[in-house]
Amino acid sequence: MALKTEEKPCSLCGKRKTVYFRPYSGERLCRLCFIRSLERKVRRTISKYAMFNPDDRIALALSGGKDSLSLLQILHRLEASFPEAELYAVTVNEGIEGYRDEAVEHAVEACQRLRVKHVVVSFRELFGCTLDEVVEASQSLEDSPAPCSYCGVLRRRALNLAAEKLGATKIATAHNLDDEVQTLILNLIHGDVYKLGRIDPEAPEAEGFIPRVKPFREIPEAEIAFYAYLTGVKFQSKPCPYAGYALRGEVRWFLNRLEASHPGIKFTLYHSFEKLKPLVRSGVKAEILKCKLCGEASSKTICEVCNMLSQLGKLKEPGKTN
Amino acid sequence: MALKTEEKPCSLCGKRKTVYFRPYSGERLCRLCFIRSLERKVRRTISKYAMFNPDDRIALALSGGKDSLSLLQILHRLEASFPEAELYAVTVNEGIEGYRDEAVEHAVEACQRLRVKHVVVSFRELFGCTLDEVVEASQSLEDSPAPCSYCGVLRRRALNLAAEKLGATKIATAHNLDDEVQTLILNLIHGDVYKLGRIDPEAPEAEGFIPRVKPFREIPEAEIAFYAYLTGVKFQSKPCPYAGYALRGEVRWFLNRLEASHPGIKFTLYHSFEKLKPLVRSGVKAEILKCKLCGEASSKTICEVCNMLSQLGKLKEPGKTN
Repeated sequence: MALKTEEKPCSLCGKRKTVYFRPYSGERLCRLCFIRSLERKVRRTISKYAMFNPDDRIALALSGGKDSLSLLQILHRLEASFPEAELYAVTVNEGIEGYRDEAVEHAVEACQRLRVKHVVVSFRELFGCTLDEVVEASQSLEDSPAPCSYCGVLRRRALNLAAEKLGATKIATAHNLDDEVQTLILNLIHGDVYKLGRIDPEAPEAEGFIPRVKPFREIPEAEIAFYAYLTGVKFQSKPCPYAGYALRGEVRWFLNRLEASHPGIKFTLYHSFEKLKPLVRSGVKAEILKCKLCGEASSKTICEVCNMLSQLGKLKEPGKTN
Repeated sequence: MALKTEEKPCSLCGKRKTVYFRPYSGERLCRLCFIRSLERKVRRTISKYAMFNPDDRIALALSGGKDSLSLLQILHRLEASFPEAELYAVTVNEGIEGYRDEAVEHAVEACQRLRVKHVVVSFRELFGCTLDEVVEASQSLEDSPAPCSYCGVLRRRALNLAAEKLGATKIATAHNLDDEVQTLILNLIHGDVYKLGRIDPEAPEAEGFIPRVKPFREIPEAEIAFYAYLTGVKFQSKPCPYAGYALRGEVRWFLNRLEASHPGIKFTLYHSFEKLKPLVRSGVKAEILKCKLCGEASSKTICEVCNMLSQLGKLKEPGKTN
């Protein structure tokens, strides 16, 4: 009688009990081989895209969710082999009542345990208002953007400012394969074709931006979640109260549905976009200017942060958003 | 008291009763203004992409569905203004038991009524087997492609051969906005990035292929269906028995869901891909060869038609697939 998948041993070590099945590769993995395989994949991704130099000062964006806490753990271990590298964690508190505080606690606890230097910055201190206040003020606008649009723009800026202050030479974020593919499809949906060429660690960085790297960009979200579970990462599982508004949720749902019936489809999409990137980059050149109000690097004369805040009447002192 | 949408008159003529609401533009249209607006949009698309010359001999791919029968009607009317142009209809009978015959009847009836010269070709006469036989033979292959993959490749060839025989200078197909966007997303899903640059009537045509034009490429499927209904087009409404197998169905369903919550999203996607096309075209060059077996133009040394048929043991005489 043939053994069922869960009864067959790990296909890598051939001995231990299978705890995970990878539909796109057909591999059955035991706990140890799964953990090793994921960490090896991350190291390979880092090396494939030459994400780090041995003397980088890395600012890791640590939200307190499963992805960033798992990345913290992996980068912390890797850092040990590079004595000249430095790892900092940066947590951005957007000011979302009843949601963000728990995540910040997980972030603080993990950094204390691993002895990683940790900085927490808030929208309130940087922009003078919380995300909750921004969302409330946006209600009065006609066709007001979704909360995620505000949050994305402000969080990106907050992270940049904190990383600059730390003298970081790289910003690492825990965006995974699912995030990447969703973002690329959302760019198409929004008509932002030139952005397809931008999300790439190999892209020559524009002046004024600290290079961003994504060591999880080729790891499916489901595998990171399972890694976090297996290695005992304590993370915030409650979803953001604003997440329901986002088109991203619909794209995410569709991709998961497709992946279930056609395992590997997220990788194929990812590689399609990888092939498109150099073509888009060579065809579209985005000029980098300095925002007239805050002086930060931007593709427009008034950056998106100042633009959003001034529309909401939250830009208190022109020239000083931070 | 405010009038409900269906109680307000047509927003174009301001007089007649509204029968159609366009969510992406906010227009309410009466029967006559809807028909005129759709036909005008088709004429504009033809002119925008310079689809036809005044002396073209056009082979219209007429399946007998709502799209191609509607296009027949519109092109037939347009042809009257271009005395040097000629319109032929070509129907391909794939050999799908209990499905294709009804569609062929609608096609024959419409061409007789409009006095359009009509040619019917079949997979059996061109390739020596019907689609049903191809699908049956494919069951024994490991990882056999979906029926739609076979049908697409063979139908494309059948249409080319029939159009060549007629001396046609253009092939017109009734692919609509939904078809185009679905195809482009499917290309990404399948990793066929270079194909993103191909579907374009402005693209310089490769030697050996009759240029293809799609006058409905910017018309949503729902509007063509309503046009067919309003103008009394009799068409086959039964779906193809093999349609259920196709990934296209999932993509279609997702796009319709997105369009319902975000009207206009199909247009945005379409325009994103339009922006990508020239970038992809300039970066990727597909060489056009001649198939060693049948002599038809192909990007490979053995074309997809010969490749598929030989895998199925249906390639009877090498060098003569047709």
